[in-house]
Amino acid sequence: MVAGIKVIGTAYSIATMRVLACLYEKDLDFQFVPVDLSTGQHKMEPFLSLNPFGQVPAFEDGDLKLYESRAITRYIAEEYMNKGTDLVFKEPKKQAVESVWAEIEAHHFDPAGTILNWELSVKPRLLGLEVDRAVVDENEAKLVKVLDVYEKRLCESKYLGGDRFTLADLHHLPTADYLTDTSIKMLFESRPRVSDWLADITARPAWRKAVELRNQALKKRVDTSMQGSQTK
Amino acid sequence: MVAGIKVIGTAYSIATMRVLACLYEKDLDFQFVPVDLSTGQHKMEPFLSLNPFGQVPAFEDGDLKLYESRAITRYIAEEYMNKGTDLVFKEPKKQAVESVWAEIEAHHFDPAGTILNWELSVKPRLLGLEVDRAVVDENEAKLVKVLDVYEKRLCESKYLGGDRFTLADLHHLPTADYLTDTSIKMLFESRPRVSDWLADITARPAWRKAVELRNQALKKRVDTSMQGSQTK
Repeated sequence: MVAGIKVIGTAYSIATMRVLACLYEKDLDFQFVPVDLSTGQHKMEPFLSLNPFGQVPAFEDGDLKLYESRAITRYIAEEYMNKGTDLVFKEPKKQAVESVWAEIEAHHFDPAGTILNWELSVKPRLLGLEVDRAVVDENEAKLVKVLDVYEKRLCESKYLGGDRFTLADLHHLPTADYLTDTSIKMLFESRPRVSDWLADITARPAWRKAVELRNQALKKRVDTSMQGSQTK
Repeated sequence: MVAGIKVIGTAYSIATMRVLACLYEKDLDFQFVPVDLSTGQHKMEPFLSLNPFGQVPAFEDGDLKLYESRAITRYIAEEYMNKGTDLVFKEPKKQAVESVWAEIEAHHFDPAGTILNWELSVKPRLLGLEVDRAVVDENEAKLVKVLDVYEKRLCESKYLGGDRFTLADLHHLPTADYLTDTSIKMLFESRPRVSDWLADITARPAWRKAVELRNQALKKRVDTSMQGSQTK
């Protein structure tokens, strides 16, 4: 039987991984429909009918169709509250604090982190392009400020969103994990609380499953692009 | 008696207006504590203790302290669900769709809209700086794509988030209203559904109250900066 939940995405895309990590945390069955970014499938029909902005992932649960990864994870966490890991709070004031840290991820951590991942990982390793040092320096400075705030927060609270792992932490995983494979790793390691927090959340079995899927997809992408360069 | 709710912000700041519009919709009493951006109060203590990122507004409800405007409005809408205008949905699938459109505001509409407002309104009118046409063109092209998606959505649904006004619409108000006072107005007007939607939401009494407060604060800012230039 095909599961009611369907993720249409790319296993190495940051936004797709956010959704996969959430589904694994909730221990939900789902069908994964791969989208090939290298051939621009996400900018064509039928994908554009699922997300007019042409960005992976799209998501279905029966007749409900969603996109925007953080709206999808929020839906999964609320709709399946009693399944797997509880990723939100029922108490409104606790939930409000979790939301603040989820917004900080979206508006402070992610913008700088995504650019750094693009410059330090995607451009040199997947696309063979040169790194723009000015862009790296600018965004590294932004990330330093964010991580200083996190270090302080994590002295007061075991996780960003509160006393247990929630969406506010989970949303960081894909970008943070990619960045630890670059020179940015040092920014995390030099802050003891941030370092402990990252070691903790990246060791979660649900996240390891998402990473396994990501690595398979990345290997396939590298193999394909090498094949391409050999036939040129 | 001082109300339990306190907004520490600047009445002409986009993020502050988002929170003010929400409070007026919910018909809640609150205390407004102005922050003077022109003297950098938001980058100094005591404000930095309220928001380490140094951005207005900060928010208090009794002993709960929040920042990040969209986390604040979400808290107000959930905590005071039965007061004033209902700005969220109780039904999870309807709420999920509302969340998608709230995310679109945050990640597609607002980034382009804020830059256009900065270039076309703040820089020439408040700071006496020259407009960067390349930046305007780039972000105008982005906004065009977003508004095309909105036009289609508003053919199927009276409001972005669903069949009634919710946070997904409200979050657009400050930036959209500022932009209608620039050449960008045309992008809204040339799309009939977007135009009707914007006329509808900007006419809401709660929004008019926020605009009144904004205009008073803007007038004061212009008067002060004129005084400053006369004493130079």
